[in-house]
Amino acid sequence: MAASNTSSSIQQSGTYSYESSSRRKQAYYATMTSPAQFNGWLGHDASSVDGNLKWGSFEPKTWAESDIDIKITHCGICGSDIHTLRSGWGPTQYPVCVGHEIVGHIVRLGEVSSKKFKMGDRVGVGAQAFSCQRDDCADCSTGREQHCSKMVGTYNGKYNDGSKSYGGYADYVRVPSHFAFKIPDALSSADAAPMCCGGITVYAPLVNNGAGPGKTVGIVGVGGLGHFGILFAKALGCDKVVAISRSSAKKKDCEAMGADGFIATSEEEKWFKKHAHTLDLIVCTVSSPDMPLSGYLRLLRTYGQFIQVGNPEDKLPAFPAHALLAKACKIGGSMIGPPAQIEEMLQFAADKGVKPWIEKRSMKTANQAVIDMEDGKARYRYVLVNEDADDHAKL
Amino acid sequence: MAASNTSSSIQQSGTYSYESSSRRKQAYYATMTSPAQFNGWLGHDASSVDGNLKWGSFEPKTWAESDIDIKITHCGICGSDIHTLRSGWGPTQYPVCVGHEIVGHIVRLGEVSSKKFKMGDRVGVGAQAFSCQRDDCADCSTGREQHCSKMVGTYNGKYNDGSKSYGGYADYVRVPSHFAFKIPDALSSADAAPMCCGGITVYAPLVNNGAGPGKTVGIVGVGGLGHFGILFAKALGCDKVVAISRSSAKKKDCEAMGADGFIATSEEEKWFKKHAHTLDLIVCTVSSPDMPLSGYLRLLRTYGQFIQVGNPEDKLPAFPAHALLAKACKIGGSMIGPPAQIEEMLQFAADKGVKPWIEKRSMKTANQAVIDMEDGKARYRYVLVNEDADDHAKL
Repeated sequence: MAASNTSSSIQQSGTYSYESSSRRKQAYYATMTSPAQFNGWLGHDASSVDGNLKWGSFEPKTWAESDIDIKITHCGICGSDIHTLRSGWGPTQYPVCVGHEIVGHIVRLGEVSSKKFKMGDRVGVGAQAFSCQRDDCADCSTGREQHCSKMVGTYNGKYNDGSKSYGGYADYVRVPSHFAFKIPDALSSADAAPMCCGGITVYAPLVNNGAGPGKTVGIVGVGGLGHFGILFAKALGCDKVVAISRSSAKKKDCEAMGADGFIATSEEEKWFKKHAHTLDLIVCTVSSPDMPLSGYLRLLRTYGQFIQVGNPEDKLPAFPAHALLAKACKIGGSMIGPPAQIEEMLQFAADKGVKPWIEKRSMKTANQAVIDMEDGKARYRYVLVNEDADDHAKL
Repeated sequence: MAASNTSSSIQQSGTYSYESSSRRKQAYYATMTSPAQFNGWLGHDASSVDGNLKWGSFEPKTWAESDIDIKITHCGICGSDIHTLRSGWGPTQYPVCVGHEIVGHIVRLGEVSSKKFKMGDRVGVGAQAFSCQRDDCADCSTGREQHCSKMVGTYNGKYNDGSKSYGGYADYVRVPSHFAFKIPDALSSADAAPMCCGGITVYAPLVNNGAGPGKTVGIVGVGGLGHFGILFAKALGCDKVVAISRSSAKKKDCEAMGADGFIATSEEEKWFKKHAHTLDLIVCTVSSPDMPLSGYLRLLRTYGQFIQVGNPEDKLPAFPAHALLAKACKIGGSMIGPPAQIEEMLQFAADKGVKPWIEKRSMKTANQAVIDMEDGKARYRYVLVNEDADDHAKL
């Protein structure tokens, strides 16, 4: 990764093994500790999305013995960051430090968290930082923590003790250890980071809805999420993976990612008729409500399912009930995934060599990276890098 | 049934056994035959729904050796009849003879259909009369014939040979034998008739989506379909069945049907908040698009499913994707059921003593019955009775 970092900011091929150096790195980080105050890019109002993030200090959550402090090396830029910075999903509790595709090394452990991790461990954190974990919680007790009513997001959330959660556009992050997971040696930190939210967001609905051999799967929207959708659907062994986008601009990229088919909805006339009844499962990553939903539904086969993972700020377009009745189709939603499934996905990605298309950006240039992300320039995920911390990884 | 027929037009309790007389009846009908032309209540335009059905003759489909002719004793009035008579689901091919909850006795058999049935058999016909039944049809080969693209409805449909399908507001009906099923002796013809469409329409989504012990199920809309929903959900052993209606006018009826809970959405303030996260499965029978869909979705638990079976003529109300994402919920559709599942349902109803609430109306008064149905007066299903034919059943 270090070599790649200096030669190119785009990683599209090759695999990395951290096995040889992982012990050295762990030992190095194990000698460190975390400061009382953390520093990060803070959004103070909705204008922060337009390049107005301010670097500043913040108080991490009140320490608990089940927590860990992570020295952040990498943090992916997720669409949620944009929605939150501009208060698109409701009023954001400014100041906010966004970022929930975090990878780094543990530099502080508690009595409880030391049962799960060791100092210096390379770990990831996704979009969730807390759930009640009670035995009488229908969600936590069945391994679907992300739906727990006490769920606290990795940023813009409030813990039971009143302290706020701050995300990964920062030097350090403190989180309950239940919501951190070790990164397999075969994955680079830069590749693993965007999997922690973007990856699991599409992996979960694919796996939970039967994607695999014998199935034809459509992925709507070719952005950070969509590109993961294509990669994972292929790695899962689906018979055919069809990328669905407005224009054909990203067609070649999709083919390089493994897509077997491509539909350009704004260019191909009557695409919904031509490709009707061809897909078993569609995962829709679009986060704008301006989508031809009724057309997508026509692509489904009998018993087909359309799973929405993008979360538009406005309502989805209305559709006729008949679109569901005629083929006994379903429209569902899926939201990230529980820690156990994130671990499963990371191992799956390591085993199958799933390699995301990312562009590394310096943490120092977060403002410009957010603007570029909002402008749709990412191919296909920006990953902010704390060079200072990451340099240590060259060990 | 004959006794009940003379004493009361409303059947709400009691069970009937046809075992003793079924052989005599079969023998009686076996001596009959069908005429070249059938007679029925024909709709000639959209005004037919307003009491303008005209009794007249029509040509049944061209005879095939796999067909059967049925002398109709009973035909339920289904909401589809209303939609079709007024061209609500698109232009109806007038003249139309509606009615697809048909029970009667076989009075003509072909070489092929005689392998499945005997002359005089008491059989039912639902909403579907034809599918391709080819081995290479993804739907027919997997027992979901109702989704076959060659599906022909029991009325307002066109067979391959160009002949039209005519329904059960008539003296006789001709259908391919694959889409007729024997009525178990324990069910009366009047009770069995509305199960052939109304019953299977709710039975299928309940069974297909896991209704049973351990599950709490909501039924939206207490009409013909909804009342079947309550009856079947209870018979399937669901932990709790909650009826959901606008007003509390039908609350007592629902309790008598077995409902454990009742929500009156226009009377109970913040019902969607009070009952949030309580239901595993909702079957929505409402066929008006004017429904509080977002509120219904709030009632679902994590992984909950909302299955629409009513088919409004307009689009469903728009809802936010977040309603699905937050709890990984699904909105689906279901449409009648395949012949095998209808047979399963009839046997289940016979075994469990499922007893629909019906009102018998003379076939002669079909026009008024349709008007009353449209006015929401049915408690809860009208069944048209051909008294002339039915009298023979007294044998």
